[in-house]
Amino acid sequence: MEIKIMKNILYCNNKLAQENRELLGEKGIVSINILASPGAGKTSLILRIIEALRDKIPMAVVEGDIAGSIDAEKIDKLGVPVVQINTGGGCHLDANMFKEAINSLNPPEGCLIFIENVGNLVCPASFDLGESGRLVIASTAEGSDKPVKYPQAFQTADAIVLNKIDLIRHIEFDRDFFYKGITAVSKAPVFEVSCATHEGLIELLTWIEDFYKSKRVKND
Amino acid sequence: MEIKIMKNILYCNNKLAQENRELLGEKGIVSINILASPGAGKTSLILRIIEALRDKIPMAVVEGDIAGSIDAEKIDKLGVPVVQINTGGGCHLDANMFKEAINSLNPPEGCLIFIENVGNLVCPASFDLGESGRLVIASTAEGSDKPVKYPQAFQTADAIVLNKIDLIRHIEFDRDFFYKGITAVSKAPVFEVSCATHEGLIELLTWIEDFYKSKRVKND
Repeated sequence: MEIKIMKNILYCNNKLAQENRELLGEKGIVSINILASPGAGKTSLILRIIEALRDKIPMAVVEGDIAGSIDAEKIDKLGVPVVQINTGGGCHLDANMFKEAINSLNPPEGCLIFIENVGNLVCPASFDLGESGRLVIASTAEGSDKPVKYPQAFQTADAIVLNKIDLIRHIEFDRDFFYKGITAVSKAPVFEVSCATHEGLIELLTWIEDFYKSKRVKND
Repeated sequence: MEIKIMKNILYCNNKLAQENRELLGEKGIVSINILASPGAGKTSLILRIIEALRDKIPMAVVEGDIAGSIDAEKIDKLGVPVVQINTGGGCHLDANMFKEAINSLNPPEGCLIFIENVGNLVCPASFDLGESGRLVIASTAEGSDKPVKYPQAFQTADAIVLNKIDLIRHIEFDRDFFYKGITAVSKAPVFEVSCATHEGLIELLTWIEDFYKSKRVKND
């Protein structure tokens, strides 16, 4: 019974996601859906990327939150177009919410949209928004067992970020176990970074630029 | 449409939760549902509580995970009865899963059951399991905005734990903002602890003992 309902919801969602994908493809717009637990560093990473790449790539942000607009305000301060979606209790963004956000943003051709999903390593993984790719963030402070315990999110990732690498000397973190969990479900590249100290960001920024270029080419 | 489906699911869930509550009440069993983001320290806290209170209170644990049994194995090593529930992708425990876990545990009269919910600060908050009370954990590493961004979990808490307090000197954490977010939705006591260094655990253990005693009295 419950499974049946889920299928119906996903059928509608996937149809809308496909529409989003076609609409953005026609405009040469690339979008990256960012998934992570609460507090893993989604907003901090978006801020670092904007600061580094804003002169090279036109960017926009869709902020998904259950309530409030704390993160959207931080993006807005940098002068980057941003739309806040409040899900009102909902645990993930869906394709319809992303569609409304696109309408509201009216993003310029060829831009790069970051979608900050609701902080949740479970539900967002099941919902295609029509994005070009997914970036999954885990933080060292969450422990090394996240890929084993939440495999679906990591399985669907185009790139994986291990954030708060600066904290690793203050905590117990089994790097081998973390990577073992990832390689069991994913071949995506992993970037070890710290949004606080800026360690490791250059490699990630290069990946984002390359991803943006490769997806734009496909759309042309 | 989606709201209607949600109501139907919750109606069934709440009916089963009430049955669990009555069944456990008759046996003088107290249960605490633990909610937190992935990696906030749910298992570590349960381990610390078991170590400290095992000679005073008979305990049992229900472990909820999407996949795997890493945490249940840690509890099992301490010789405490534990049942692992794998939700197979599901983002929360529900009353039916808890009912099956109780049947499988066959817990002794007057014991204290800890329910470690799926790591998720969103969905578990909506599902009553028939528990006696809720404990919500946030970790300092997640940042100080969790109560503002995920109010429902904090609103339903009987006690709130701020874990990883030992990391606070290595990160940016706005304590005032954290407490402001909590007092906006909750009057529950807040315990600042570190499961790694054992700081602050004594006050929390006293609360747990008092909660256990008060709920047992009501059931008699």
